[in-house]
Amino acid sequence: MRLTAMTDYALRLLLHVAQHPQRLCTIAEVARAYGISEAHLMKITHRLALGGFLETVRGKGGGMRLARAPADIPLGAVVRCMEPDFALVECFTHDVHAPVPAAAALPEDAPLPGGTCLLDGHCGLAGVIGGALQRFMQHLDRYSLADVLPGAARPVQWLQQPVTAATAAAD
Amino acid sequence: MRLTAMTDYALRLLLHVAQHPQRLCTIAEVARAYGISEAHLMKITHRLALGGFLETVRGKGGGMRLARAPADIPLGAVVRCMEPDFALVECFTHDVHAPVPAAAALPEDAPLPGGTCLLDGHCGLAGVIGGALQRFMQHLDRYSLADVLPGAARPVQWLQQPVTAATAAAD
Repeated sequence: MRLTAMTDYALRLLLHVAQHPQRLCTIAEVARAYGISEAHLMKITHRLALGGFLETVRGKGGGMRLARAPADIPLGAVVRCMEPDFALVECFTHDVHAPVPAAAALPEDAPLPGGTCLLDGHCGLAGVIGGALQRFMQHLDRYSLADVLPGAARPVQWLQQPVTAATAAAD
Repeated sequence: MRLTAMTDYALRLLLHVAQHPQRLCTIAEVARAYGISEAHLMKITHRLALGGFLETVRGKGGGMRLARAPADIPLGAVVRCMEPDFALVECFTHDVHAPVPAAAALPEDAPLPGGTCLLDGHCGLAGVIGGALQRFMQHLDRYSLADVLPGAARPVQWLQQPVTAATAAAD
């Protein structure tokens, strides 16, 4: 189970830019810092700018900066902006807008191929996987870029807190 | 964000076999039913048998049947059995055993490449994404193959139930 490399790189790019609020950052420096190709980073920067997360300044001395404060950049919004689709299983492509909150923010060019499964519409898999994806995105929506910056207080309690029967039932 | 096609096919294969409890099913018929190559299905059948979900009978008249009742096959266990890894972001490969319950059931050949991100260990991204994955898998663990079979009562309440602030806080 994976997010695309583009989403991974986008999160790292935003983390890098957020750590240098006093100046413009360049694609070249982000490429050097993480060993990511400039061609990839140009596409990512373009999409993040369209999504309202980055501002770019053209020309000599230009570069990029965050378009909003790190606390106003929810991680879930970045993932929705970058992922081409959430087609966890083939038949699920039909339901992608239903289960994920704010999925209307999915990029318009997200592919939504028709399913070829004979059980499509008859089995309950899409509903259950949709519910799981909903919980995944809801968790990301609780955190912003500010929460995960180096030096920020770590939300480790979400990782280490045992999930009791009671909290699981309330989920 | 995607599961592998192998996981998708494994779930469909189990759904097909579960619908024919009175006889052995063959790879050829599953291949025809879903338009999946027999070579893929042989690998999937092998892994599902190793995972204790399928029993196979060799020879003429042989085939496969479920090794347990559909109600005893949690969807989360099937996904853990089939996915090669849960490397949602590169740095997360280090943490894969921590956040996902029963991740010890991950296949031993799951790749765990070292991260190359300079922020590795300094930013909080792996923790938050690990928490989101934990919630994804916990949801799948609540449902079995029996819950998603065609004709089973649909767990649509999980999809359509609005998530209130209270339930979100308890999650």
